[in-house]
Amino acid sequence: MTEDRKPGAGRGEPPVRADYARFVPLTTRWSDNDAYGHMNNVVHYALFDSAVNAFLIGAGLLDLRGQGPIGLVVESGCRYHRELAFPQPVTAGLRVGHLGRSSVRYEIALFGGEAETAAADGFFVHVSVERLTRRPVAHGEAMRRALQEMMR
Amino acid sequence: MTEDRKPGAGRGEPPVRADYARFVPLTTRWSDNDAYGHMNNVVHYALFDSAVNAFLIGAGLLDLRGQGPIGLVVESGCRYHRELAFPQPVTAGLRVGHLGRSSVRYEIALFGGEAETAAADGFFVHVSVERLTRRPVAHGEAMRRALQEMMR
Amino acid sequence: MTEDRKPGAGRGEPPVRADYARFVPLTTRWSDNDAYGHMNNVVHYALFDSAVNAFLIGAGLLDLRGQGPIGLVVESGCRYHRELAFPQPVTAGLRVGHLGRSSVRYEIALFGGEAETAAADGFFVHVSVERLTRRPVAHGEAMRRALQEMMR
Amino acid sequence: MTEDRKPGAGRGEPPVRADYARFVPLTTRWSDNDAYGHMNNVVHYALFDSAVNAFLIGAGLLDLRGQGPIGLVVESGCRYHRELAFPQPVTAGLRVGHLGRSSVRYEIALFGGEAETAAADGFFVHVSVERLTRRPVAHGEAMRRALQEMMR
Repeated sequence: MTEDRKPGAGRGEPPVRADYARFVPLTTRWSDNDAYGHMNNVVHYALFDSAVNAFLIGAGLLDLRGQGPIGLVVESGCRYHRELAFPQPVTAGLRVGHLGRSSVRYEIALFGGEAETAAADGFFVHVSVERLTRRPVAHGEAMRRALQEMMR
Repeated sequence: MTEDRKPGAGRGEPPVRADYARFVPLTTRWSDNDAYGHMNNVVHYALFDSAVNAFLIGAGLLDLRGQGPIGLVVESGCRYHRELAFPQPVTAGLRVGHLGRSSVRYEIALFGGEAETAAADGFFVHVSVERLTRRPVAHGEAMRRALQEMMR
Repeated sequence: MTEDRKPGAGRGEPPVRADYARFVPLTTRWSDNDAYGHMNNVVHYALFDSAVNAFLIGAGLLDLRGQGPIGLVVESGCRYHRELAFPQPVTAGLRVGHLGRSSVRYEIALFGGEAETAAADGFFVHVSVERLTRRPVAHGEAMRRALQEMMR
Repeated sequence: MTEDRKPGAGRGEPPVRADYARFVPLTTRWSDNDAYGHMNNVVHYALFDSAVNAFLIGAGLLDLRGQGPIGLVVESGCRYHRELAFPQPVTAGLRVGHLGRSSVRYEIALFGGEAETAAADGFFVHVSVERLTRRPVAHGEAMRRALQEMMR
């Protein structure tokens, strides 16, 4: 499978499953494949978003219909190591790379099928803000504990 | 409008229109707004992709139905300075930040409406490959010239 | 261009621009093209939604951040006559096909570039509901007048 | 849960799981929820497409990188009975409603979580065409048999 290794993707080895703290299984969609027949580079970010928010909601840390703080993305990035493609299932690995007073850096990797090595890895930085005023607020205690457990 | 400035987005000032070489007008979509009522962070990358490929196709440098080389994305990133939202029109500013033998770093900023200052700025790195084998190939002469003109 | 006419799409002739009351220009996106190199059938609905909501917001009939009624889609449909594809610009034609006490049937056609004949035409039915309780409410007077003007 | 029943969605009862022949589990995404906090009506079609194509590929009836016939969508439609929302998992039920010489009508329902009653049900009509010429071709024998088994 070395031929589907992306050229020029060499800067640093791709991470492996053991580098991550939690795993979220995801299904791919027909529309994820672009005109080149592989998962479009944009879709990776949609999966990052979905994996992190599914974790937060599942852990009771984000209530979409509630009034608590929300996370706004201020920066994001991704490195693409191998091609992914529908209908392949994907697993997202999650960890916390940095935890500030009101910010958190989520680091996410996408694993195709049963692969141990990531097809892509990236991050996004959430700043926790009040829903209406969009002013930064410190992480609550439950949030901070949950995020600390995911630091690697 | 200072209140829709994103908190913690401070690292470096956002770029302005004069920092870019070409401009592509884009329309936003209802589905761009997520549950928080603003353009989801993923959509920015869809606009980056669309602006660069519209430029390449318009300049005769990419033929989707042809057999020439294609660009694979090996890395991408974005900083979010202000919120954008449907139905606001957006203009993408494009420039080339780095030009290698077979790679190119496109830098893109998104401007909401008539704003001079970018709501978001980012990049992606394309490696030019043969369509079938996905082996890197040097940029052709026309491509190289067009990209050089967009360096800032 | 007869060869990009979709086979079996014959049930009734495709509509033309003169059949519609309002027009909304839209840009296409790289990700609109699927693995077959044309606009995926799902994207047409995203354009329908965007065109109608852009019209409503532009006419002051929908305030996304306000507390007024919203429209919930209870049915939708589309017939595909010819292929569309990024980077082609698209114009949406809008009209109202039926206007009930709290419901409205929007009919939308998509025209590729300067074409007079629709590449696709479809509809969706909105039921106007209170934002929180999701109970149907009669159209307000301004809304009813604006929708009546769009009946064809 | 009667209050999340969509108003005006009454035309005919929503189907139940027993009305379908095959089931495909799907995950939802953060970006599926629109500004109203529920799955946008467009996403249902993306799930229809994904479920049918995943079935076809899994059954060896569609090879994305091959040269065999492909299915072009000439018509589609959906009725929305109840709201769905990320992060809820969804199951798609599939059946074949009509089978022509070169066409097939797929009927799909979406079930939220463990629900027996569909939140939405719809269809799309595929016409089988040669990949390059886009001329209709009769279904092959394996395809016809597989589709017949899914008729309900």
